[in-house]
Amino acid sequence: MTVGIRGMGLIGGSFEKAFRKAGHEVLNLKDAAPEAVASCGLVVVCLPPRFVAPWIREHAGEFAADALVTDAAGVKGVVCRELADITRVARWTFIGGHPMAGKEVSGYENSDAALFNGASMVLTPYDWTPPAAVERLKELFAPVGFSRFVVTDPDRHDEMIAYTSQLAHVVSSAYVRDPLATSHAGFSAGSYQDMTRVATVDPDIWTDLFLFNSKSLDAVLRRLIDRLADYRTAVRDGNADALRRLLAEGRAAKERTK
Amino acid sequence: MTVGIRGMGLIGGSFEKAFRKAGHEVLNLKDAAPEAVASCGLVVVCLPPRFVAPWIREHAGEFAADALVTDAAGVKGVVCRELADITRVARWTFIGGHPMAGKEVSGYENSDAALFNGASMVLTPYDWTPPAAVERLKELFAPVGFSRFVVTDPDRHDEMIAYTSQLAHVVSSAYVRDPLATSHAGFSAGSYQDMTRVATVDPDIWTDLFLFNSKSLDAVLRRLIDRLADYRTAVRDGNADALRRLLAEGRAAKERTK
Repeated sequence: MTVGIRGMGLIGGSFEKAFRKAGHEVLNLKDAAPEAVASCGLVVVCLPPRFVAPWIREHAGEFAADALVTDAAGVKGVVCRELADITRVARWTFIGGHPMAGKEVSGYENSDAALFNGASMVLTPYDWTPPAAVERLKELFAPVGFSRFVVTDPDRHDEMIAYTSQLAHVVSSAYVRDPLATSHAGFSAGSYQDMTRVATVDPDIWTDLFLFNSKSLDAVLRRLIDRLADYRTAVRDGNADALRRLLAEGRAAKERTK
Repeated sequence: MTVGIRGMGLIGGSFEKAFRKAGHEVLNLKDAAPEAVASCGLVVVCLPPRFVAPWIREHAGEFAADALVTDAAGVKGVVCRELADITRVARWTFIGGHPMAGKEVSGYENSDAALFNGASMVLTPYDWTPPAAVERLKELFAPVGFSRFVVTDPDRHDEMIAYTSQLAHVVSSAYVRDPLATSHAGFSAGSYQDMTRVATVDPDIWTDLFLFNSKSLDAVLRRLIDRLADYRTAVRDGNADALRRLLAEGRAAKERTK
């Protein structure tokens, strides 16, 4: 099978290397001729979220009739909505995708054939997507190393990702912007490094991700701020019982959801 | 040299194993006879913070005249203040200590001779502590694996640690207490794991750590909540410029302070 990839950054490059390692031919679809696009059984669009739907629409007439087209954007609602009309009539099949893998650095130079090993891949088919196409897409992606596929709808994906990923990136960025950060050396260990690791992400891409998912992100941010205020109140009041209860609930929540 | 350790949890156990590995004799000072305490050139008190000063006061008459006594509590102001009077008159020397190393799990069963490898050790001598004693303590601790010693005063330690460690533990606990945490599986990757890793810490010990340092913790919590509110406002307003600026500042702060 020939795999076409558009967007050779961290994610696209990692797909390229992983598919090559699995024995597939991989085409970089940047400036690719229509015949090249037509030769691909699988097309993975790894562009920043705002460019995914426009690129697919632009090449809608070139994909092979039985091609599976997917993407790797971190928001699915906006991408899948923009492609709903065309995918209803196309002979090829588009299924939204989001690999649950990444790094705090970007670019092809950081890509890695092993990036997806053991990771989850979220797929967001439409109501009208044939279940067989979803199964075929899972099979095509299996050699890349995913250990799990989650099939859900775009809105549920976006709600979950606001919490599991976007909120973590907001917190990391906010955490490291404290005046004391400049003096952390010698006073910090793993928890500080973990807390600030993803503060280095690309501001343009993540601004888009956040604003394409603003309602869900706003909701999880509001809830986190409210919870942090509870700890702060307990600290200010010297309320050991309240603090112990909050920490015990956090510990239980973490143990329960490991 | 004989090293006496009181408190054989994660930290005490790791000191025991590391000092043994370095060829020192190590005594567990739980229920130790006065002669055992007197035989130690170095005593490291690894009890929870509230028990450190009382234990040292209780054994004040037993330490060898030239003994160095230190501790591993995560707050230094309260410990050093409680011991100020006795250390002014004692022949032995107490210097507050805090190894910048830990794990999200506790107990002797998780202790590890390599825990301190490459870590920083913070020392908080008094104004009247002889500089030679600080240097000797560094030498005694060197075989344990520390790559760096930071000498500061107890209040500066507590201010820094509120930011680099305590705040991280509050955030982790608050983060994982969201209703969506129960559904994270399949939607999460490294950033979520990093954000929630230390939510499992002991509620009793950390309640003490927080309340022994409430003023500094309150200040860093307030600043973090304020910064998170700025991101939230930008998200709600769909203000891409503001969001991009906040993320760019976070990225720059992280790069600058790596």
